[in-house]
Amino acid sequence: MAKPKKEPRPKAETPKGFRDYFGAEVTTRAAMLNAIAGVYHRYGFDALESSAVETVEALGKFLPDVDRPNEGVFAWQDEDEKWLALRYDLTAPLARVYAQHRNDLPTPYRRYAMGPVWRNEKPGPGRFRQFYQCDADTVGTASMAADAEICAMLADALEEVGIPRGDYVVRVNNRKVLNGVLEATGVTDPDQQAAVLRTIDKFDKVGESGVRELLGKGRLDASGAYIDGVGLSDERAEVIVSFLNSKKIVEAELREGPPQPDDRIPGGMGIILNDPHERSEQAGQAWNWAVMDHLMRLVGTTEIGFQGLKELGEISDLLAAQGYGPDRIVIDPSVVRGLGYYTGPVFEAELTFEILDEKGRPRQFGSVAGGGRYDDLVARFTGQQVPAVGVSIGVDRLLAALHAKGKIGSAERGPVVVTVMDRDRMADYQAMVGELRQAGIRAEVYLGNPKNFGNQMKYADRRGSPIAVICGGDEFAKGVVQIKDLILGAQIAENATVEEWKERPSQYEVPRAALVDKVRDILAEQR
Amino acid sequence: MAKPKKEPRPKAETPKGFRDYFGAEVTTRAAMLNAIAGVYHRYGFDALESSAVETVEALGKFLPDVDRPNEGVFAWQDEDEKWLALRYDLTAPLARVYAQHRNDLPTPYRRYAMGPVWRNEKPGPGRFRQFYQCDADTVGTASMAADAEICAMLADALEEVGIPRGDYVVRVNNRKVLNGVLEATGVTDPDQQAAVLRTIDKFDKVGESGVRELLGKGRLDASGAYIDGVGLSDERAEVIVSFLNSKKIVEAELREGPPQPDDRIPGGMGIILNDPHERSEQAGQAWNWAVMDHLMRLVGTTEIGFQGLKELGEISDLLAAQGYGPDRIVIDPSVVRGLGYYTGPVFEAELTFEILDEKGRPRQFGSVAGGGRYDDLVARFTGQQVPAVGVSIGVDRLLAALHAKGKIGSAERGPVVVTVMDRDRMADYQAMVGELRQAGIRAEVYLGNPKNFGNQMKYADRRGSPIAVICGGDEFAKGVVQIKDLILGAQIAENATVEEWKERPSQYEVPRAALVDKVRDILAEQR
Repeated sequence: MAKPKKEPRPKAETPKGFRDYFGAEVTTRAAMLNAIAGVYHRYGFDALESSAVETVEALGKFLPDVDRPNEGVFAWQDEDEKWLALRYDLTAPLARVYAQHRNDLPTPYRRYAMGPVWRNEKPGPGRFRQFYQCDADTVGTASMAADAEICAMLADALEEVGIPRGDYVVRVNNRKVLNGVLEATGVTDPDQQAAVLRTIDKFDKVGESGVRELLGKGRLDASGAYIDGVGLSDERAEVIVSFLNSKKIVEAELREGPPQPDDRIPGGMGIILNDPHERSEQAGQAWNWAVMDHLMRLVGTTEIGFQGLKELGEISDLLAAQGYGPDRIVIDPSVVRGLGYYTGPVFEAELTFEILDEKGRPRQFGSVAGGGRYDDLVARFTGQQVPAVGVSIGVDRLLAALHAKGKIGSAERGPVVVTVMDRDRMADYQAMVGELRQAGIRAEVYLGNPKNFGNQMKYADRRGSPIAVICGGDEFAKGVVQIKDLILGAQIAENATVEEWKERPSQYEVPRAALVDKVRDILAEQR
Repeated sequence: MAKPKKEPRPKAETPKGFRDYFGAEVTTRAAMLNAIAGVYHRYGFDALESSAVETVEALGKFLPDVDRPNEGVFAWQDEDEKWLALRYDLTAPLARVYAQHRNDLPTPYRRYAMGPVWRNEKPGPGRFRQFYQCDADTVGTASMAADAEICAMLADALEEVGIPRGDYVVRVNNRKVLNGVLEATGVTDPDQQAAVLRTIDKFDKVGESGVRELLGKGRLDASGAYIDGVGLSDERAEVIVSFLNSKKIVEAELREGPPQPDDRIPGGMGIILNDPHERSEQAGQAWNWAVMDHLMRLVGTTEIGFQGLKELGEISDLLAAQGYGPDRIVIDPSVVRGLGYYTGPVFEAELTFEILDEKGRPRQFGSVAGGGRYDDLVARFTGQQVPAVGVSIGVDRLLAALHAKGKIGSAERGPVVVTVMDRDRMADYQAMVGELRQAGIRAEVYLGNPKNFGNQMKYADRRGSPIAVICGGDEFAKGVVQIKDLILGAQIAENATVEEWKERPSQYEVPRAALVDKVRDILAEQR
């Protein structure tokens, strides 16, 4: 008779592109998100946890005339043939939730959401198919106060988690200003507009001269390939280059002397100011006004550009009223990321401190959050345009930044380990550990095989334990315990002379009743 | 020419069996889980967040000779043809994680995990296809100290989230004692054993006489159907009934007088006690010992039953050493849930306070957590038996209990709302709200259309706002603000006489500079 076929053992591994998070990886992220949630809550935002699973239809991931969901999502067919999928971001579910519950939600609706999202994409180094997002959006108001509020909230959130003032800046731009640039340069053909947008996106990489070439006749790539140009005249290209160079130009202007607002602002700009005398009061705003003056000269003649500048002026005013100056939140036309997606103001939070890249060269840490205004959130469901503005913090990026700043340690301190010298006294060891926990001290009894004491010390080492408690027959008889300072012990073992060794013992014998106090003292000293 | 086909609008709805969580539903759950995590951490447990997606193979959800995943999971095929699925609990992923990372993890490995799991089941009222689990497990030790520790930790966790001592009890039983009962009754046929287990599970429903019938010749169901009996003799059935009635029997015995341990304990039981004199010292343990004496008489002659009682005795001793008496954690043979799954001790946390059921009758709240020892966690992956013990808290059940006890409110207090009387003074309103937030007070500016002031007050009402701040042209001119206590206002509107109304104004005019202080005072009074 044939043996029954034995099933092969399953492989113990995560699916490709997924990973597990251990210990401090979980708790530091949770603590960071909790701190951010506290700020969002203070701003009147309400938590929302939408279902992780959505209909593919609601996600908008069905293409017309295609009978499988779009790429990029993990999808399957439910029993009733409906396609379901894991959410790929937190914005598409917000649209569904707002359309579904709009009669029960306040208007405007401020909500924050934090949680994993899933992308059915090719995984790569550091690119996972499940990761956290952390979003805040205000739905249902076109008021620039909503945009200003989100910028202020973003600044507060960064400070709350430990990015000091001066180490970050929130840059604000406006899609409408860019539209004004396009109009002012006479680029009306949609394909040509798209080509200009792509070129603007490359500014960081190819620089001013590269952009000039790409906007004009074309450019020989570093790889030797020839990239066709957009074909603009030099004069038209100059408007775009001047837009991209706004920061440099304004810096040069300001070096010549403080701005003289009354001379420089074209008439129309007066509308932006509630009251001209505020200018002088808000000296900190000088930079913002200088930038807007510059942009006004570029696009002030176009209706859309003027509208965009008016919005930026409002945001700047509202922020100034709350004490957020350009040192924290600044008008900056160099923010071009996401301009294709957003319809009004766009913002990006950048960390300005330097870290070393993989080759050891210093570079700015860079972007950790971005957002902007978008107006077609729920129209897909209801046919009604609902204005909305939101921000998304890159959770992994911000965690990496906090690590880089030394704000979160790489390893968490482990528990105090009560070792087991006599298996029959387990109840006594449990009593010790119980007392420590009652006192709020993280502690555990060694629960492995206690035969080999060396293994217990190795265990304590692997756990990152600060202290080991040792109590055998002699100690029980004398009514004492041995308390070993493992951190000091390790330092001494590494560095100390024999004299120091003798002078600074790392192990103490104390009465049993003094266990908790002594452990507490040592922990306090170790901090 | 035909019009291009217009796509129908997608429906804004969650998939069947899924739901969204709003505001306080999210934050109260997060706060509860955070409190529990604090206790787990203090006990030396480390956080683990495994990937939500697993290979179907690792979940063990492939049946032999079936080419689709087992029912009960949401599964789909990855690009490389591998079947992936959403985790359906937190234990299967723990097995995979432990097998995958065992060389890097301490032994034993204490871990906790909290997060959503997904079940592809028919949804029903209150039954969702995504819900939270909250687990703690110790992997890699057979020591009863691990079981005792988890029981103590469970009791601490319940108290930490707000269930007072006396309102809960952790009941502990042991699968091995049940096996002893089966052996003592001579039930060796696996089918008959299974039938006995099913009958035991029905004890709560059919009572003592029903169990007698089901163990014997059979029973006429309430529905009129006849249920075949197991066919045991009355004498054998009596052992099982006596096991199920342990609590009642022991209660009757204890009423006759305090137990006289030395007379009553069969010789073998002495092994359980480290030291006979401890008995008198641990008067609180009397109940546990009386129960174990009773069980000893039933199953003490079987090796497995004796082993089970020895384990229960160890757990009782270890808990007593840490001060956990039977008022909190008690040996109780009536715990039968999960006995089919677990291999050693099993435990269940029950809340003993009464709530009203849907018909208004008082009943005990019941179970909120359960767990036990299981030994085949990772053998599927590695071939090696690894002992483990764990507990799972029913997150939604415990939240419902906290609601029932009034520990968490149904509605969260909303933000202070700064109303907009003059759209052009938005910067001033933002300054007010900025000051309030700086002072840690949850506050927002009304960002809807400010034209209709009534709508602003309706908005404040819908937001559950405690206070509205009102400032129009007159107030700006006088340098004051109006502060309206909305909670007192609502009370007065409902109950007050005209005199009270006059005496207790709910609206105050204060200097602009006193805004934050006055708001803080009113909030403090409202608590």
